[in-house]
Amino acid sequence: MSKEKVAIIGAGNGAHAIAGHLGMQGFPIRLYNKFEEEIAHIREQGGVTIEGAVQGFGPVELTTTDPKPVIAWADVIMVVVPAFAHRFVAETCAPCLRDGQIILLNPGRTGGALEFANVLQEQGVTAKIRIAEAQSLIYACRISGPARARISGIKQQLGLAAFPAAETSAVLEMVNPLYPQFHAADSVLDISFDNIGAVFHPGAVVLNATAIEAGQADEFYGDMTPSVVQFLEAIDRERLAVARAFGVEIDSAREWLLKTYKGVTGDTLYERIQSNKAYYGIKAPKSLKVRHIIEDIPTGLVPIASLGKLAGVPTPACHAIIDIGGILVERDFWAEGRTAERLGLADMSVDEIREFVRVGA
Amino acid sequence: MSKEKVAIIGAGNGAHAIAGHLGMQGFPIRLYNKFEEEIAHIREQGGVTIEGAVQGFGPVELTTTDPKPVIAWADVIMVVVPAFAHRFVAETCAPCLRDGQIILLNPGRTGGALEFANVLQEQGVTAKIRIAEAQSLIYACRISGPARARISGIKQQLGLAAFPAAETSAVLEMVNPLYPQFHAADSVLDISFDNIGAVFHPGAVVLNATAIEAGQADEFYGDMTPSVVQFLEAIDRERLAVARAFGVEIDSAREWLLKTYKGVTGDTLYERIQSNKAYYGIKAPKSLKVRHIIEDIPTGLVPIASLGKLAGVPTPACHAIIDIGGILVERDFWAEGRTAERLGLADMSVDEIREFVRVGA
Repeated sequence: MSKEKVAIIGAGNGAHAIAGHLGMQGFPIRLYNKFEEEIAHIREQGGVTIEGAVQGFGPVELTTTDPKPVIAWADVIMVVVPAFAHRFVAETCAPCLRDGQIILLNPGRTGGALEFANVLQEQGVTAKIRIAEAQSLIYACRISGPARARISGIKQQLGLAAFPAAETSAVLEMVNPLYPQFHAADSVLDISFDNIGAVFHPGAVVLNATAIEAGQADEFYGDMTPSVVQFLEAIDRERLAVARAFGVEIDSAREWLLKTYKGVTGDTLYERIQSNKAYYGIKAPKSLKVRHIIEDIPTGLVPIASLGKLAGVPTPACHAIIDIGGILVERDFWAEGRTAERLGLADMSVDEIREFVRVGA
Repeated sequence: MSKEKVAIIGAGNGAHAIAGHLGMQGFPIRLYNKFEEEIAHIREQGGVTIEGAVQGFGPVELTTTDPKPVIAWADVIMVVVPAFAHRFVAETCAPCLRDGQIILLNPGRTGGALEFANVLQEQGVTAKIRIAEAQSLIYACRISGPARARISGIKQQLGLAAFPAAETSAVLEMVNPLYPQFHAADSVLDISFDNIGAVFHPGAVVLNATAIEAGQADEFYGDMTPSVVQFLEAIDRERLAVARAFGVEIDSAREWLLKTYKGVTGDTLYERIQSNKAYYGIKAPKSLKVRHIIEDIPTGLVPIASLGKLAGVPTPACHAIIDIGGILVERDFWAEGRTAERLGLADMSVDEIREFVRVGA
C-alpha cells in the first residue's frame, strides 16, 4: 500500500521538522507557505535536513507559494502555523479541497478545528473532508539553519480529536501510520481546554511587561515570583471551571507539570515550576509582540473567556489579561480572537455544544 | 480671636508635618492615632520638630490613642491617614462629634468625603458637622527621625471641596487661617476624579509585578516603557470619560504633568514622564503590598470603575488592574473598595448624584 501524500502548510520550526522527518521516512511531501523568503532554501536543497534526536534528509517534492498543487494533491494536510493564522489557512485551503482529505492542526490551541470548520462552512465548501486538531506539536524542535531543523525530543503520546468526535477513529486510521503517538481524545473540547500555554504565557508576560519591553527580563520561568504564579493559578482555575461546565475534566497546571516532566518537586505550582529543570535556560521574550501575547490571547484566553461567558462561568483573570494585553500591543483581541461567534457556537447552549462537537451540525 | 483648635488624626509623614507646622504657628494641637508605638516619641518630646523648607518646633498638647479628648475638643479635625483607613476613622470619630466641627480629609482620594459622610450616617451621627476633602497633601514631606519631619516643599494652591458643595465656603472660612492655599473646587466629584495616583500607581506596579516582587525594580517612573505608559493612558482616558459623564472636566495626566512640574518636555505622556526631573530617584516599591496597590486600587480605581458603571461608561483597563491587583495581594478590592454602594450613591442616577454632591441628602 502506498504511503499517504502529506501537505505541509507553514514554514516555521514545526513545519521544517515534520516535513523533514516524514520525508526521511518516505512519505511524499509537498510544502506550501505564504511567504517565498521562508521556503526558498527548502526548494533549493530539495528538502529538509534533520539533526538531533533523529538524523537524515527528508526530500520535499514541491515547495511553493501556490496552495493548489499542494492542497488538492494531498491525502493528509498538516497545518503547522501559529493558531492566529488558522483562519487565513482555512480560507486558502477552501477552494482546493476534495472528498476524503484530512486536515490536521498541529496544534489547534483552543478551538482551532471548530474555527477551521466554521470558516470552511462560511466559504461554502461541500467536499467531505475531516478536520482534527492535535493537543500540541509532536516535536521539541528549532530551525537550526537554512532548510535544516534540530529535533531535540519527540513526544511519546499526544491527544488528537476530530470535529466531530465521531470521526476521530477514521482520522487516526489515516494519521497513525505517520505518527503512532496520536491517540483519541474525547472531543475537540478536551484538546481545546487542555491549553497550558494560555495559562503560563500571556499572564507571565503582562506581569513582567516593563522588564520585557526594556529587554531586561532574563529567564521566562525562573523569573516568576510567588504572587505572579498565584495569579497564573487564578487563570488556571478559571480554565478548569469553564472546562468542567462543558463536562471536560483536565489536569490543572499543577498536576500537568508533575505528570509531564521528570524531577519536578514541591506542592505549589510555584515550587513545581522552579524545580523543573526542563525550564532552565528558557529565556523571557525581549518584546511584548510575541506569540505569548499575540497567539495565546486570541486563540487561548479569548475562547476560554467567551465559552465561560456562554456557560455562566466568570473569568475575570482571563478578561484582565485579554484587555491589558490588547492595549499593550494595540490590538483588539475580542474582535480578532476566537469568540463563541467565531467558533460557530453562538446561540448554542452548553448541552447543544457538547452534542455539536460529538456529532457535528 | 483665638486660634482654631486642631485635631490631627494619624501619625505618618503628613500627620507629623501638619502637627509640627501648625503647632509652630501657635495653633493648639492634639493628636490621636490608633497605635501607641507610632506616637510615643511625639508625647515624650511634647511636639514635632520641623526641618527643611520651614524650621521650628511645634508643640502638641495631647498625644493619645484615646480619640475622645482629641476629637470632641477640636474645631477642625485633620484626617491624615491612608484613604483605606477613612472608614475606620469615621467610625472612631462618630461618637465624639459635636455641632460646628469641621472634618478635613488630607487628602480624600476618590470619594473620601462621601464615604466618610456615609459612615457617619450609618452610625446615626446627628451633630451638625462639615466634611471636606483636599485634593492632595499640602506638603512634600517625610518623617526624618523620632517626632521629627522634613518638609521639602509646600504647595502654593490646593483644591478643597466640602460635601455638600454648598458648605465649601463655610469650610474655607475655618481652614484658610490654617492654610490660605486652599481654594474652592466645584464639588467633591472634581476632587475625586482628579486622582492622578490612581492613574500612575497601580497599573505601573501590576505591569512590573515580577521585578517588584523580586526586589529588582529600580526607578518607579524611570523604568516605565512606552507600552506601559500607553496602558496608563488607557486608564487615564477611562478616568476622564467617567468624570465627563458626571459633568467634571479635569486635566489629563499628560496635561497635568506639564502644568505641575517645571522643565517637562515632549508631546506624549511617556516623553513627559521621562523628562520630569522631579521623578528622578523615586524608587520602585520592593513589594506588591504597597499603597500603590492597597490604597490606590480600593480608593481610586474601584470608585472610578463603579461610578463608570453607574454612568454607563466602560472601564476595562481599570477593571483589569483591580482584578489582577486583588489576586496578587489576596484581597477582594470590589468588596472592600469604594463602590457606589459604599459611597452612599447606589440607586442614584448621574443627575441625582450631581445634585447630591451640591446640596446633600
